[in-house]
Amino acid sequence: MTHLFTLSELSVTEITRLLEDAEQFRNGYFWRPSEPMFVANLFFEPSTRTKCSFEMAERKLGLHVIPFDADMSSVQKGETLYDTIRTLESIGVNAVVIRHWEDAYFESLRHSIRIPIINAGDGCGHHPTQSLLDLLTIRQEFGTFSGLTVAIIGDIRHSRVARSNAEVLTRLGAKVLFSSPEAWKDEANPYGMYVDIDKAVEAADVVMLLRIQHERHAEKMGLTKEQYHKRYGLTVERAKRMKRTSVILHPAPVNRDVEIESSLVESERSRIFKQMENGVYVRMAVLKRAIEGRMKNGDYIKKWHVVQ
Amino acid sequence: MTHLFTLSELSVTEITRLLEDAEQFRNGYFWRPSEPMFVANLFFEPSTRTKCSFEMAERKLGLHVIPFDADMSSVQKGETLYDTIRTLESIGVNAVVIRHWEDAYFESLRHSIRIPIINAGDGCGHHPTQSLLDLLTIRQEFGTFSGLTVAIIGDIRHSRVARSNAEVLTRLGAKVLFSSPEAWKDEANPYGMYVDIDKAVEAADVVMLLRIQHERHAEKMGLTKEQYHKRYGLTVERAKRMKRTSVILHPAPVNRDVEIESSLVESERSRIFKQMENGVYVRMAVLKRAIEGRMKNGDYIKKWHVVQ
Amino acid sequence: MTHLFTLSELSVTEITRLLEDAEQFRNGYFWRPSEPMFVANLFFEPSTRTKCSFEMAERKLGLHVIPFDADMSSVQKGETLYDTIRTLESIGVNAVVIRHWEDAYFESLRHSIRIPIINAGDGCGHHPTQSLLDLLTIRQEFGTFSGLTVAIIGDIRHSRVARSNAEVLTRLGAKVLFSSPEAWKDEANPYGMYVDIDKAVEAADVVMLLRIQHERHAEKMGLTKEQYHKRYGLTVERAKRMKRTSVILHPAPVNRDVEIESSLVESERSRIFKQMENGVYVRMAVLKRAIEGRMKNGDYIKKWHVVQ
Repeated sequence: MTHLFTLSELSVTEITRLLEDAEQFRNGYFWRPSEPMFVANLFFEPSTRTKCSFEMAERKLGLHVIPFDADMSSVQKGETLYDTIRTLESIGVNAVVIRHWEDAYFESLRHSIRIPIINAGDGCGHHPTQSLLDLLTIRQEFGTFSGLTVAIIGDIRHSRVARSNAEVLTRLGAKVLFSSPEAWKDEANPYGMYVDIDKAVEAADVVMLLRIQHERHAEKMGLTKEQYHKRYGLTVERAKRMKRTSVILHPAPVNRDVEIESSLVESERSRIFKQMENGVYVRMAVLKRAIEGRMKNGDYIKKWHVVQ
Repeated sequence: MTHLFTLSELSVTEITRLLEDAEQFRNGYFWRPSEPMFVANLFFEPSTRTKCSFEMAERKLGLHVIPFDADMSSVQKGETLYDTIRTLESIGVNAVVIRHWEDAYFESLRHSIRIPIINAGDGCGHHPTQSLLDLLTIRQEFGTFSGLTVAIIGDIRHSRVARSNAEVLTRLGAKVLFSSPEAWKDEANPYGMYVDIDKAVEAADVVMLLRIQHERHAEKMGLTKEQYHKRYGLTVERAKRMKRTSVILHPAPVNRDVEIESSLVESERSRIFKQMENGVYVRMAVLKRAIEGRMKNGDYIKKWHVVQ
Repeated sequence: MTHLFTLSELSVTEITRLLEDAEQFRNGYFWRPSEPMFVANLFFEPSTRTKCSFEMAERKLGLHVIPFDADMSSVQKGETLYDTIRTLESIGVNAVVIRHWEDAYFESLRHSIRIPIINAGDGCGHHPTQSLLDLLTIRQEFGTFSGLTVAIIGDIRHSRVARSNAEVLTRLGAKVLFSSPEAWKDEANPYGMYVDIDKAVEAADVVMLLRIQHERHAEKMGLTKEQYHKRYGLTVERAKRMKRTSVILHPAPVNRDVEIESSLVESERSRIFKQMENGVYVRMAVLKRAIEGRMKNGDYIKKWHVVQ
């Protein structure tokens, strides 16, 4: 089974393979499954970017998308995620993409669900396709990860992006710096060194900003948006001190003038919208992997028919 | 016009024809309408199974699906169901699938709407495609209905499944047993004999459990879930006393450990997920019937053009 | 860039061209873009007619539709409309259709968004595709606009239909009469002359009724529905005094027995459901214009690639 739950579970070879496939899709590579395939996107949390990006990737691969509306689903009647997915599987869905508010929701599904699950974000856990698009964007810029310094700045503690990226970047040979208000440091994440934001911005090849998940968070620290921006955000002043070749990333949606000055969002250094473009290609690669895994997996097909 | 409101309105010949078509679809039969066809699924109540099953069936027949979101529709502005459907008809929708919380919502539409309506569940009324998939699953198991004993167990009173199935099973030659707490007996349904759950389970070829619609219902009787399960549910103990060849059905979503012990849901005797698979095929058959009826119906096409 | 924000921005030639394209689509004209195209429908207000009509038009042109659910989007996280559209653009969406509750929401997007935006209604502002379908329906009836008298009746003040239609009808050579309760007169709209409803109905070739947006509105004037209907609505009595060849239009959804007597909605004079049919064809024409504009616009394509 070719689930994708976290990048930590993939080898460097597998990650590289996905990035290469994505780059090929970007260059116009055409691939379609050999038979009609059906997918469903189960989003239990709001999302524009990730949801629409998967929808686009699915259509570009010629997959049929079965609409699933979490608000109108039987989950409202108390159905478990397991039963919902088994239902979709029975109906003929070949793969599911899931975003869910529960950390590691997939652990209980790992061995019991026989169609591939692609994790599109779990609680404060992981977001592997976001990491892949970050990696792709960095690789397009620098050709390598080895020797790069990546500064991840903001709410490290509550960010699935920080969690996913720090581990994989370290594994790929990059050096990770964290910068965050005291309250948002994540002691459990061993893959970065905490430094002051000014140092982080000056040292980094990649300045990766995180979204403040809830505006209340800044307020809880007793800071207005303006104060937060000045102390912990990417101001125009700070951006001027970035290295000549370094770039800005942000998983978006951006809180303009909070974690980043509005004018920098579409500045020359920013790759924020390019990240979104890349998101479609990495998701095409991930879906292709899921479908190819499924098609090779003759066992699964047989097992299922025995039940009938 | 080939509406499908209730199975009671169909002859045994028509029902058999639908089951045969569904079986053919299951065996890979390929059928497509001769011209592009558009359908809309109007779900005014939560549903995963039925909604997704129709969406799958529609795509497998190559139909175009016009998304309809009840929450975002003009129904919110007080538009009647009649006007909503007439609107969709004007826009070019060729058939509609409707789930609605009102019993027999379709009565007022029967003679006024000129595109086929497929009832996907009305209030506490009927659910014909659910019945058809139950019938298909039973027929696959036993080859016939004649002489079978089917036990329908649970909330008989509030169940559209019980209502639809008891009548049609009786008509097809099966014997129907009901088993239910006193409060959920349905005096208005003459097609089954009430017996104790232990008797029902032991006598039945098909043990058809119903979903407790609202958990409050059990609580109202002064029973905890555990107590309900023990007195009225399919426990492992009871399942052991089933006949050697008998099977378990449930329309789902299942309240695990309430109406049925969790471990039985995917046991060897269970056909619960197979029912869901069959759901797609019976819906393909029902959609084919609707579309073929529409295409033969030259009168309708002409009348409509006159209005222009 | 071929945005469509208001009809006021289009020349008579452009409007005529759109109507002719729409008429051709009605007559079965087949047009498809030369490469796969993706659109998204961003509806921030409830709608059945307009939303479903666009969905149908898009499918008839073979466009791929990326589902966008405003309730589940990052707009919920405070994302601006600009950032949402730029996101969709980055993901590969080629055109967006937008309904939004804010008047002239598009002004801030006019020069900053590089994919075509089609306005599907803005606050109390404009609704150009509704106007176009009204124009198409009138043209089919009378062959011309010149010399026609069009009475627009009801809540002139809060109606985007009144605003869009009065200007364009005047420009096309028709005479516009307004009729409305005192409180709903719109001093800012110079394109019609206020007359009593009885006069309006008797003089008009086209009786165009408006929807009472909020039932509270009538109540605020101290009128029951019945009283409103009698004083300001199209009663059967009034309809009898219409000219022999004149027709009834209404943008729908209709409040039956408020602005129009229920039995008149599908009477011989009514073109209300024909308007809905025409809606699909004008939207096909508008989408074709947007896509053709985009495809000619080499600059845009290039500019975008430079950013990469």
